[in-house]
Amino acid sequence: MGNSRRVKVGIIGASGYGGVQLVRLLMDHPEVELVYLGGESSAGKSFADLYPHLAHIVNQPIEAIDPQTIATRCEVVFLSLPNGLAYKIAPQLLDKGLTVLDLSADYRFRNLTTYTNWYGAQRTDLATAATAVYGLPELYRDRIAEAQLIGCPGCYPTASLLALSPLLKQGLIVPETAIVDAKSGTSGGGRQAKVNMLLAEADNSLAPYNVVRHRHTPEIEQICSDLAGHEVTIQFTPHLVPMVRGMLATVYATLRDPGLVRDDLITIYKAFYRNSLWVKVCEPGVYPQTKWACGTNLCYIGIEVDPRTGRVIVMSAIDNLIKGQAGQAIQCLNIIMGWDETLGLPKLGFYP
Amino acid sequence: MGNSRRVKVGIIGASGYGGVQLVRLLMDHPEVELVYLGGESSAGKSFADLYPHLAHIVNQPIEAIDPQTIATRCEVVFLSLPNGLAYKIAPQLLDKGLTVLDLSADYRFRNLTTYTNWYGAQRTDLATAATAVYGLPELYRDRIAEAQLIGCPGCYPTASLLALSPLLKQGLIVPETAIVDAKSGTSGGGRQAKVNMLLAEADNSLAPYNVVRHRHTPEIEQICSDLAGHEVTIQFTPHLVPMVRGMLATVYATLRDPGLVRDDLITIYKAFYRNSLWVKVCEPGVYPQTKWACGTNLCYIGIEVDPRTGRVIVMSAIDNLIKGQAGQAIQCLNIIMGWDETLGLPKLGFYP
Amino acid sequence: MGNSRRVKVGIIGASGYGGVQLVRLLMDHPEVELVYLGGESSAGKSFADLYPHLAHIVNQPIEAIDPQTIATRCEVVFLSLPNGLAYKIAPQLLDKGLTVLDLSADYRFRNLTTYTNWYGAQRTDLATAATAVYGLPELYRDRIAEAQLIGCPGCYPTASLLALSPLLKQGLIVPETAIVDAKSGTSGGGRQAKVNMLLAEADNSLAPYNVVRHRHTPEIEQICSDLAGHEVTIQFTPHLVPMVRGMLATVYATLRDPGLVRDDLITIYKAFYRNSLWVKVCEPGVYPQTKWACGTNLCYIGIEVDPRTGRVIVMSAIDNLIKGQAGQAIQCLNIIMGWDETLGLPKLGFYP
Amino acid sequence: MGNSRRVKVGIIGASGYGGVQLVRLLMDHPEVELVYLGGESSAGKSFADLYPHLAHIVNQPIEAIDPQTIATRCEVVFLSLPNGLAYKIAPQLLDKGLTVLDLSADYRFRNLTTYTNWYGAQRTDLATAATAVYGLPELYRDRIAEAQLIGCPGCYPTASLLALSPLLKQGLIVPETAIVDAKSGTSGGGRQAKVNMLLAEADNSLAPYNVVRHRHTPEIEQICSDLAGHEVTIQFTPHLVPMVRGMLATVYATLRDPGLVRDDLITIYKAFYRNSLWVKVCEPGVYPQTKWACGTNLCYIGIEVDPRTGRVIVMSAIDNLIKGQAGQAIQCLNIIMGWDETLGLPKLGFYP
Repeated sequence: MGNSRRVKVGIIGASGYGGVQLVRLLMDHPEVELVYLGGESSAGKSFADLYPHLAHIVNQPIEAIDPQTIATRCEVVFLSLPNGLAYKIAPQLLDKGLTVLDLSADYRFRNLTTYTNWYGAQRTDLATAATAVYGLPELYRDRIAEAQLIGCPGCYPTASLLALSPLLKQGLIVPETAIVDAKSGTSGGGRQAKVNMLLAEADNSLAPYNVVRHRHTPEIEQICSDLAGHEVTIQFTPHLVPMVRGMLATVYATLRDPGLVRDDLITIYKAFYRNSLWVKVCEPGVYPQTKWACGTNLCYIGIEVDPRTGRVIVMSAIDNLIKGQAGQAIQCLNIIMGWDETLGLPKLGFYP
Repeated sequence: MGNSRRVKVGIIGASGYGGVQLVRLLMDHPEVELVYLGGESSAGKSFADLYPHLAHIVNQPIEAIDPQTIATRCEVVFLSLPNGLAYKIAPQLLDKGLTVLDLSADYRFRNLTTYTNWYGAQRTDLATAATAVYGLPELYRDRIAEAQLIGCPGCYPTASLLALSPLLKQGLIVPETAIVDAKSGTSGGGRQAKVNMLLAEADNSLAPYNVVRHRHTPEIEQICSDLAGHEVTIQFTPHLVPMVRGMLATVYATLRDPGLVRDDLITIYKAFYRNSLWVKVCEPGVYPQTKWACGTNLCYIGIEVDPRTGRVIVMSAIDNLIKGQAGQAIQCLNIIMGWDETLGLPKLGFYP
Repeated sequence: MGNSRRVKVGIIGASGYGGVQLVRLLMDHPEVELVYLGGESSAGKSFADLYPHLAHIVNQPIEAIDPQTIATRCEVVFLSLPNGLAYKIAPQLLDKGLTVLDLSADYRFRNLTTYTNWYGAQRTDLATAATAVYGLPELYRDRIAEAQLIGCPGCYPTASLLALSPLLKQGLIVPETAIVDAKSGTSGGGRQAKVNMLLAEADNSLAPYNVVRHRHTPEIEQICSDLAGHEVTIQFTPHLVPMVRGMLATVYATLRDPGLVRDDLITIYKAFYRNSLWVKVCEPGVYPQTKWACGTNLCYIGIEVDPRTGRVIVMSAIDNLIKGQAGQAIQCLNIIMGWDETLGLPKLGFYP
Repeated sequence: MGNSRRVKVGIIGASGYGGVQLVRLLMDHPEVELVYLGGESSAGKSFADLYPHLAHIVNQPIEAIDPQTIATRCEVVFLSLPNGLAYKIAPQLLDKGLTVLDLSADYRFRNLTTYTNWYGAQRTDLATAATAVYGLPELYRDRIAEAQLIGCPGCYPTASLLALSPLLKQGLIVPETAIVDAKSGTSGGGRQAKVNMLLAEADNSLAPYNVVRHRHTPEIEQICSDLAGHEVTIQFTPHLVPMVRGMLATVYATLRDPGLVRDDLITIYKAFYRNSLWVKVCEPGVYPQTKWACGTNLCYIGIEVDPRTGRVIVMSAIDNLIKGQAGQAIQCLNIIMGWDETLGLPKLGFYP
């Protein structure tokens, strides 16, 4: 028996870093059976050819992407593809009753014009896109529970929004003063060979990129606007850090009430995330480091107030490939299935 | 109930890297309850002061080391102390019936003169030391099962011996030709502040050290001699690599039978480690990388033969702090307790 | 002859990272002869004991710090000591007519009360401190040329001020909106053994520290106030990056004139730094990486304007130990001596 | 005037890491004028497009490779191309009287059958190849001085041969016992985008590769055979280290005379390299680290003898891109031109 009652899950786009995290995490998930691995350029290869160290545990081939076949074998499908592919595949899977968790940007936007402006592709699938729920459980737990299609946010929006949400939701800051200075390990760039991601180039260097024009900006703004109840514009600057995994967002904003002190805000954050087991608010004077979160689905949040400037500074640290990608999608699945939200997800990393 | 039937375990020396691995791994172990954390200089502090990211999971204080108290609370004790301290504490714990797993060098030597020559301390505790079993399960599983005191090998001997054992046990190489060129991440140096271990010094550099005089040499030779059935002398050279975790031993030796080919040796290794679930022998042409083993208790072994020189080259990769330290001690505990040897130990790391 | 006409220079505090940069740079300086190396805890050692790779080039001992002796041998002295020591030694050297370049914080403050508030020590040497010039040549070239005592700024103020100065000096921004999010390699922590600077701790992690209370804040504010012509308060947040050398400051501020575009600002910066050969303003769309500056005395500045938010974002990259420390002091010396400001300083690093 | 008397030099293959080192080093060379940069895929681009941080210093375009044009403008040409291209271009340049320094493998082999066996290409240019001199100045200084065509060795052969040469030349070791365990930074892989060279893959990992079949093996053996006076077979194993630059070769060999001690060998090495200013033999007990050599043309050699095993262990550290590539080629040029062998080459790196 055992496996026979498990939910049958497939991964489309299994060969990249998102895919290998999903494989890794789902192998440990007690309620899930991994029955399908799919890919485009990697179709026909064995998963162990791509990740030889997993040969003793994963002996599945990577298969071609055929929605018909997938639908006969899977109940749930994770899409871990480059932007612009999911929306061509998902509708067929949804039609056949599958639950779809998309890790790309395709289903994160309510307004497809915004998507088109930033991602290029002309979208006409308004009906499907309108059913998608933004997969950040700490904000949209209830809607996720009832969704069939989830647009899971990636690392930058996750780190930024978990830092900003209590402030915006409760009207504690002047929204237009919000600045997100974000720092990411290079695995966020995926398993594609690019010169600027070579160890020889990226190691021992820190580099800002896509300043004032990163595509995660409108996504962050969409959710911030939701929380604030009006249109919000955010300053977002990403930086590439010489490390494999991990992300830190350092968020600055001016407090509406200059009398608020650090401990007030820590109390507010702890209350806001009372039911969010994956968010850990640090004690006063403790600031999170990315290493703390690595190998876990946790988000650590540290808070400071500068009475000299009237600003709050919030620092959030996540593992960009877990809470910032694959772990978050599985957290959404747990909610959809009615399982414990922490099921099968790592709470403890290794240190150092 | 639950915990009430679990084995009560303590850690003496909980504040260092060995300690934090033990805490991390034992928190996940289904048959163990962690009831005591002890330390010397850290006594009185909270564990969360030292490792704030674990504050949500470990809320125990670090207590003073009082064998009497420990014995009333624990059934099993891990000693994770600098060399030369365990042999002063262990006898009292053994007397009270506790099982003791020592991670230091104190109980690894059958010949205490060798210990004294390399570690300095004069030892007179021959009777206790004689009861200790060398905690490398792949070689001494049966004796470990019946032991009360285990001297667990560290990272260098573990990586070296797992690579060399099949060759020596089966007389396949000329023993005196064996050379171990070993490469270690800097976490092997522990959580002590030392200038040469600063990121500023050790990063972007590779450094050999203790050439021809590293203290793990006689320990490796002791077990090699056991396997060969006569005295064996080994060349061992450690190097410091700019990475946190991980160890690779590249082992060279001249084959007695020049007709042996790579695939013969792979077959021999697979047979030798048939019952050793933590050792993975790589397929032909696949060589292990340290990252594969990180975050797991696995040892990956790759094998190559050079028909031009008549040498076998064996590469073994481990996580120096898991299979090379804390994980191995827990693996020994699993054997002693009659549990599945893999219980509570990580089989899957995160990649990349 | 040759050396006989060179200026005789000494270094007090030669054993640390500041010291070894000074030694390295001064060995290559055509107008300088290095005649004295001094230290406290390192006195009596050979410099080559501390830095064996320089044994073939530096064969001087590190001597005790005796101002009398130093004055007889040197014309110029660099002080590379922890904060709070220079002000006890410098007066004696100045009295004997020596030129003193201090790399610590001791002579950077016009207002010694500010120094006392942030650094602890009670200072009564108002007369001497009042003669010190802040050693940032791009701002105070003329005053440096006539000074006998220089308080050289370190890495954070240098990177921050070179990014902010044109904006403040020309009244282009709302000063109180200025935020400096700074990222530093770990060599900024010096050659002291500290646990949080170990490779095992700091590698593959990014960590904010001293949020809202870093001691470089008042120093940056002092100069910003100078430039703006009124008191300015700055938000400054330092982060530790897993790399040896290099610093990036990402500076945010709201433009007074929302009609200013990026190319305007690039023109303004190029004009502002027209005579500053060590500052390189990047072309539109090019953002500096820390690696570009490593091994040089250069500061690379990239500029972006976000028309959506009305903010300017300025990124400045330096080598924290050269333009952020030793190189800057030598640049000051060049100015004092009337030499070419680029003399003996590296313009070209190695890439990658 | 100035430049008008300088030797006119061109670089074919200027866009890669070898090219950018040559540009960097030749900019600082007092007797050379860099008049031509050529490339294939990069032709038509500006050098500053590829390396924006050099825009203030190098404003030349990368031109197409036209031997006729090159010959009219250059007296000396460096070829920094992938293996298999130089031998198609060099003959035309030689015919026109140019001096050619090739950084690829094309002109390193006396026996072109060996080249064909390991590199694939069928070569018929015996006459030209026979005139090439192996560009390791420490061994072939006199022949280099009279050559028009140099086949410069790369990083692995340079580090290996500088460690082995005194032993082989003076018959101190049993040649067939020689093992070279080599460790390289990832910049040795060049500026091509490859997945296994991504920071995300290569950082925090150590990986052996091309075990028993690396193409530098026959090249090392060719020179070792030269030195020994008979055919020598070497064991050579390369490893990829998570660092940008630097290489260490750890060499093992059995001494013929077991009575030789470490200090004897240090004396022998110092004598052997008496006239080789770029080789630094370390004092007893000092072992080289790769960081010492980085940013310089130096090779540091440390020596140890193990009286227990009768082996000598020699460790050589170089910067793989300077002494292991571009610096060495310039050192050869200095010799050919009759200039000081150290001219224009860096003796001092930055530490840490």
